[in-house]
Amino acid sequence: MGNWIESKGPDSNIVLSSRIRLARNISGYHFPHVMNDEESKKIIKKLSTFMLKENRMPAGNFQLIEMADISHIERMSLVEKHVISPRLAENYKNSAVIVNDDSTVSIMINEEDHIRLQTINPGLQLWEAYKLADNIDDTIEERLDYAFDQRAGYLTVCPTNIGTGIRASVMIHLPALSMTKNLNEILNAITQVGLTIRGIYGEGSNTQGNLYQISNQITLGLSEEEIISNLAAVTGQIINMERIERAKLLQSGRARMEDSIWRALGILQNARVLSNNESLGLMSNVRLGIELGIIKDIDITTLNKLMINTQPATLIKLEGKDLDTESRDVKRAKYVRENLK
Amino acid sequence: MGNWIESKGPDSNIVLSSRIRLARNISGYHFPHVMNDEESKKIIKKLSTFMLKENRMPAGNFQLIEMADISHIERMSLVEKHVISPRLAENYKNSAVIVNDDSTVSIMINEEDHIRLQTINPGLQLWEAYKLADNIDDTIEERLDYAFDQRAGYLTVCPTNIGTGIRASVMIHLPALSMTKNLNEILNAITQVGLTIRGIYGEGSNTQGNLYQISNQITLGLSEEEIISNLAAVTGQIINMERIERAKLLQSGRARMEDSIWRALGILQNARVLSNNESLGLMSNVRLGIELGIIKDIDITTLNKLMINTQPATLIKLEGKDLDTESRDVKRAKYVRENLK
Repeated sequence: MGNWIESKGPDSNIVLSSRIRLARNISGYHFPHVMNDEESKKIIKKLSTFMLKENRMPAGNFQLIEMADISHIERMSLVEKHVISPRLAENYKNSAVIVNDDSTVSIMINEEDHIRLQTINPGLQLWEAYKLADNIDDTIEERLDYAFDQRAGYLTVCPTNIGTGIRASVMIHLPALSMTKNLNEILNAITQVGLTIRGIYGEGSNTQGNLYQISNQITLGLSEEEIISNLAAVTGQIINMERIERAKLLQSGRARMEDSIWRALGILQNARVLSNNESLGLMSNVRLGIELGIIKDIDITTLNKLMINTQPATLIKLEGKDLDTESRDVKRAKYVRENLK
Repeated sequence: MGNWIESKGPDSNIVLSSRIRLARNISGYHFPHVMNDEESKKIIKKLSTFMLKENRMPAGNFQLIEMADISHIERMSLVEKHVISPRLAENYKNSAVIVNDDSTVSIMINEEDHIRLQTINPGLQLWEAYKLADNIDDTIEERLDYAFDQRAGYLTVCPTNIGTGIRASVMIHLPALSMTKNLNEILNAITQVGLTIRGIYGEGSNTQGNLYQISNQITLGLSEEEIISNLAAVTGQIINMERIERAKLLQSGRARMEDSIWRALGILQNARVLSNNESLGLMSNVRLGIELGIIKDIDITTLNKLMINTQPATLIKLEGKDLDTESRDVKRAKYVRENLK
């Protein structure tokens, strides 16, 4: 299936990725925020020992990365690549991630819960991502005793995760709906069916580059299948609305739309200083141009890579040394130029 | 020497062209604004008959274009190319121009005065332009009786032209001085030495693309040589100030400056809709980039041609049919793209 950054999937011209995240805790241990260092090490050990050796594990080879072993920049770069959550990076003293070769599966240890199992697929592939997550979850459950209650389901730190412990989400590009300001209506409708929409770095993150993350709010009282069905159906509707809005924009002002798309590409190919915010905005325009077939010689995966690799920490990691904001903007412009020739 | 649009001259990296204009009237005829149609035809005939046949005439072959014989668009295009003045085009029923092959010399007939002899050279070449104008003026004077007064000099319709009847001017690119807002000081200083600064289409025209025309205000009480010396000296000073300002800008923020230069090129090479005003602004940035040696593979003459050929009337003339503002902006963007590849 491949990594969402470097591969395409169904509806890739609007949906970047589909993600499933399962929250699990191991019975007989304190929750991460109240346990001591020793206990946290034990959990990392427990999980990694069997997971790295387990040859029945789906999705390839896994490696363990203890957060305390890597630098702040490396941790932030993993956040930017959506391999780990900001919380795991913050709680780096006692946390770790077990990740497979192409980062389609990552198992965060001692995030908010003992286990946060995440699978990401390119495009709209919620069911495929869920199947993989479920599969790995079963493999883990054979070896460990999950904290589970017959009535409440999987027990989690935060009540919003209790029950199935599932969060399903899609990362979606909605430039036309953002432009025409129909997004507020959609936001209201989404909330009413138990979903939520936010920036691509999760709760509290800003919306940038017309990219949004739509996910379920409710984990209790619905089965995993119902949650995914619900999200898939709403996502399908939003994809349709975005398509209609794009067609309308093209019909009412094709020249203006093509103009802003090509200008964005021209600026990205020529700028010498690029802030992250401006860069994401311009990339959204270029992405739209590719999605609409107006720009033909650039692949959408090139844009995905550019978007991730120009994030502050990943950029510093690529450069191999620390950069202040000014130098980062110069470096970002250089990187974008060289990769958009 | 060549046409200023297609050739370079001294200080071409700041000065686009040097122009001399002599105002003359023929003795025994009413001034253009009070004469009848017959009289105006007589003057056109008188001048053209000998000028088109005269083989001692410097600056190559001449042709006569009667303003009534060409379309409004063609007249406006000649204005945009600085071959004729807006006034000659307005007064098209009774006016004409005699112009040489490369448009370095044009003799407007029945503009404000009977004769407006103009020479334009690329770069800073006021003396060369004057020598040519003087030469042609002498040749005409051998055949015609100019309205001349021993004390007042050449008699002209407007008192501001009486005396030498000369207007010397340079078209100059001052992006750095415009940016740093030192232009007002210069404006004051210039006025005090009898010069004036304005937009490139003469009196009342707006400043666009950081291009200015500096010319003498006074024609009486000074010799032609004094007037040209004065303008040449002040232009030299302004060139120096602009150079210093450019160096300062580069020193204080090279990345920002290169950024705006390359972005301008990127937009011009990619835009699908370009207003004349935006286009001139972006071209000014690209011109600066060429002048500073930052952009190396585009010649300044390419910019000159682009600037002239994207003016509204010339653009319509190139297209061969009328265009509304919207289509003109699309056509302009296409023309710029194709010529800046």
